[in-house]
Amino acid sequence: MIRKQVSRYLPVLDWSREYSRAALVDDLLAAAIVTVMLIPQSLAYALLAGLPPEVGLYASLLPLLLYGLLGTSRTMSVGPVAVVSLMTAAAVGGLGLAEPAHILAAAAALALVSGAMLLLLGFLRLGFLANFLSHPVIAGFITASGVLIALSQLRHLTGMNLAGDTLPELLLGLGQLKTEFNLTTALLGGATLLFLFWVRAALAPLLVRMGMAERTAALMAKAGPVVAVVVGAGLAWWLDLAGRGVALVGEVPAALPALAIPQLPMGLWQQLAGPALLIAVIGFVESVSVAQTLAAKRRQRIDPDQELIALGAANLSAGVSQGFPVTGGFSRSVVNFEAGARTPAAGIYTAMGMALAVLFLTPALAYLPKATLAATIVVAVLSLIDLSILWRAWRFARADFIAVSATVVVTLLLGVEWGVSAGVAASLAIYLIKASRPHIAVVGLVPGTAHYRNVDRRPVVTQPHVLSVRVDESLFFANARFLEDRLYQLVAEQPHLRHLILQCSAVNAIDLSALESLEAINERLNASGVRLHLSEVKGPVMDRLQRSDFLDSLTGRVYLSHHQAVTALDEEDFVI
Amino acid sequence: MIRKQVSRYLPVLDWSREYSRAALVDDLLAAAIVTVMLIPQSLAYALLAGLPPEVGLYASLLPLLLYGLLGTSRTMSVGPVAVVSLMTAAAVGGLGLAEPAHILAAAAALALVSGAMLLLLGFLRLGFLANFLSHPVIAGFITASGVLIALSQLRHLTGMNLAGDTLPELLLGLGQLKTEFNLTTALLGGATLLFLFWVRAALAPLLVRMGMAERTAALMAKAGPVVAVVVGAGLAWWLDLAGRGVALVGEVPAALPALAIPQLPMGLWQQLAGPALLIAVIGFVESVSVAQTLAAKRRQRIDPDQELIALGAANLSAGVSQGFPVTGGFSRSVVNFEAGARTPAAGIYTAMGMALAVLFLTPALAYLPKATLAATIVVAVLSLIDLSILWRAWRFARADFIAVSATVVVTLLLGVEWGVSAGVAASLAIYLIKASRPHIAVVGLVPGTAHYRNVDRRPVVTQPHVLSVRVDESLFFANARFLEDRLYQLVAEQPHLRHLILQCSAVNAIDLSALESLEAINERLNASGVRLHLSEVKGPVMDRLQRSDFLDSLTGRVYLSHHQAVTALDEEDFVI
Repeated sequence: MIRKQVSRYLPVLDWSREYSRAALVDDLLAAAIVTVMLIPQSLAYALLAGLPPEVGLYASLLPLLLYGLLGTSRTMSVGPVAVVSLMTAAAVGGLGLAEPAHILAAAAALALVSGAMLLLLGFLRLGFLANFLSHPVIAGFITASGVLIALSQLRHLTGMNLAGDTLPELLLGLGQLKTEFNLTTALLGGATLLFLFWVRAALAPLLVRMGMAERTAALMAKAGPVVAVVVGAGLAWWLDLAGRGVALVGEVPAALPALAIPQLPMGLWQQLAGPALLIAVIGFVESVSVAQTLAAKRRQRIDPDQELIALGAANLSAGVSQGFPVTGGFSRSVVNFEAGARTPAAGIYTAMGMALAVLFLTPALAYLPKATLAATIVVAVLSLIDLSILWRAWRFARADFIAVSATVVVTLLLGVEWGVSAGVAASLAIYLIKASRPHIAVVGLVPGTAHYRNVDRRPVVTQPHVLSVRVDESLFFANARFLEDRLYQLVAEQPHLRHLILQCSAVNAIDLSALESLEAINERLNASGVRLHLSEVKGPVMDRLQRSDFLDSLTGRVYLSHHQAVTALDEEDFVI
Repeated sequence: MIRKQVSRYLPVLDWSREYSRAALVDDLLAAAIVTVMLIPQSLAYALLAGLPPEVGLYASLLPLLLYGLLGTSRTMSVGPVAVVSLMTAAAVGGLGLAEPAHILAAAAALALVSGAMLLLLGFLRLGFLANFLSHPVIAGFITASGVLIALSQLRHLTGMNLAGDTLPELLLGLGQLKTEFNLTTALLGGATLLFLFWVRAALAPLLVRMGMAERTAALMAKAGPVVAVVVGAGLAWWLDLAGRGVALVGEVPAALPALAIPQLPMGLWQQLAGPALLIAVIGFVESVSVAQTLAAKRRQRIDPDQELIALGAANLSAGVSQGFPVTGGFSRSVVNFEAGARTPAAGIYTAMGMALAVLFLTPALAYLPKATLAATIVVAVLSLIDLSILWRAWRFARADFIAVSATVVVTLLLGVEWGVSAGVAASLAIYLIKASRPHIAVVGLVPGTAHYRNVDRRPVVTQPHVLSVRVDESLFFANARFLEDRLYQLVAEQPHLRHLILQCSAVNAIDLSALESLEAINERLNASGVRLHLSEVKGPVMDRLQRSDFLDSLTGRVYLSHHQAVTALDEEDFVI
């Protein structure tokens, strides 16, 4: 029992017991491939977040180790990712700091705070709260973020001084073509972009045609950015591109990060709380969906609450080791998966690989042109942009379309910090407004059956003294008065009415407000000489009604089936 | 048509056409009685709001006139009421103004802004939004406000310098008994309280025993405050109570208010927006429930959207005539109703009566002791305090109890401005969390019938290769992943499974997220060799599904009834 409790919080105890030699070899190979891919990625995402390159490397050390020990996904690769890096840039930029040391501390603090929040949510088992972020809203948010990220990289691709967190700001900068435009930078950036697009679109099929196995070809094609980065750094060193005005990554310290709590004034911590929560939620949702997609392929299970703890610990560790917020990234995890990683140990080996890179590769990294990194970012995020969600939502339901387009528009116009909140608010508001105005149908008997259907949809039989009404929603405070109004209106239209039967087959729950409304309806109908009956009341609703005095004061009866009710009331009237 | 449109916005055109001499006499009598009651009330509620007495009188002039022309309730009496006055005190107090002129302007601005908001909601026909304020939350809020109001009057009843907007502040003041305690004031306040309680509890039965008609006796008992006020003012003048340290109302200007937009710095208008919205919503909800209660007694109808417009206009007029926020009051409306008012004209006559009072009665009002007014407030609000709502909610459902107690506790501890928001937030959160974890039951055949019921509640027949599952909730983003998890879990428990049938009789709606989940479930079950079927899909849900590609990719079929599905799948397997 205790062992089970412990291994729930430390999944490593589970999988490490049966760790085989074969798994070790597979994991080491996958780790080597992922490390090679992660080095340029971590530099690029640090650039995107507006931070020095080493911060990206630091964020790829301890977090990978901790996720490897605590995570429930066997193949997910944790580290810096595009959308969270953009959110970090917006959050840290919003503080208006000038001192580089303060900016570093703020980024680390952001990781620390969002890590703490994730841990708290995990220990309280509140992972289900992330469900309120709907699929379409996330899809819209990621698409809009992709657009913003791609545009933000134009700065590095051209040497122009464009900056901004929103579409209007970025476009405004684009309009005022500045003198900083640097031809060499633009040529390098453009060439890298073309190369990367070619690799993505044409390399894998080419390799397959040349006789390579399909999986290997796909993996090779994923190495495009690595080649671009190596060639770019080589050119920069060989042709002295820095002398021609091309911005390079510059000196990267060749040492592992020291462990320390970031030093920041109290007020700034508070200002970071909102963005940290958003980063925590978005990072968690993205990461869990990556993990679940991969787990489903191998019939493995993900525990969302444990994922909160693992991601929380990963971010905490990023926060105390001069990193910035991290989460599970889709493309890198797919590489890890395809490269054959079998257990989270692959992530731990990747962390070791990154540590070696920090210690021995940094002199070479200094020559990396920023334009090359920017090109890898642009190509990576273009796959995030998927406008088809707008079309799918439009075709499916107006409500979903409003939620998605609110997310996209607000993200583009006001920035990432508002986009998600707007999407969640819109989807909740739409849901609540719909629930507050439920579908209420007058039903009648389908001839020759015992079924009752909407009088507006089918030819059915009704009677002048019995009104059958079906409510297609749980009854609660937001729709209780709506029900009252509608019933009074229906009753007023039928002067010969003696019985109203409420068919409750779709009423899944009832609250105190709705009970009070039913009491009012019962009383008021009674005053007009109409008796109120209920039919097909579900177990949980009946349990509630029995806890109140309603059933005692009910002028009519509760029937098991609607047909029973109509038949009984018919006979009763016949007897009278 | 046009006439109908106009009379929708001007109900006065409706009732005035058939205005009879008899109605005139009845309305005049009711107006006279209400005026006599309203004079001390308006002074007392101005005192409660922390404003000079004449503000209360001004708020009882134009607003009554406008509601008379625009309102749909025939008997409601609009004017200053206890809870809204307390909210005004909190809102204006929150601005930290020192200058009396600024305080007056802020109170008027509050009425103006909340009037404008009500008008806007009315023209946009958004009255249904008030439904999100549930009965139990309002009941809790009013009870807690009643406690705060009663305690806040201790200051005037004893002459002590107690102040505060929350229970801790008020109790803290009570603990530090200040030297301001004034024996004469306390004696006067105590005596008035005792007298008013006696009137309320014992006078009406006594009068009936003395041979008076019951309705007249009830009306006479309502006149208690008027007698107290007349006697109090008389004593103050005769015994020179001011000389003994008893605080009097003091000089009240004997002139009608000038019409003017309140002058306030822009920043303060913005600060008033939040409290104004709360006052608008609370005022509207209270007022409509009063109007509906009275209308039901005479089989009349209230139009909530037109009520928004009428109350909006009333508050706007209060704002431009040096008043403060007003709404329909319960006790006064009951008096108007019982006194025989037949049309809104009674309210218009009351406004005229109040104008006469302002012009000719003010010299006498100057002698009114504040302690007497405070006593009338305390007795009035004690009838608002109804702790039974806590007990009712507790007995009915934990969710309702949490919402009510959150409202009560937050109102008492943090003040009126937070109480309602906390209650609404709590009730929405509870509703959403419940909807996000729906009841999902495995069902089986009740032997000898074609009905399927929960296997945990009844002895039913099930099969090893067909799993029947009923979801008791509409499917939407917040519960889509929950459904996925639960189904995967159920399927994993049944190794021989070949068919999963989802009984959708309680699924009233479906959104894009839920559709995506269904697609994922379909695909994943297919990979495990299990086909997915649907049964009893409702019309609106089917319409949605047909707009997507889901039905094409569905591995199973959609059946009209669940029994049909089970029978068909049984036969199919038999053929195989």
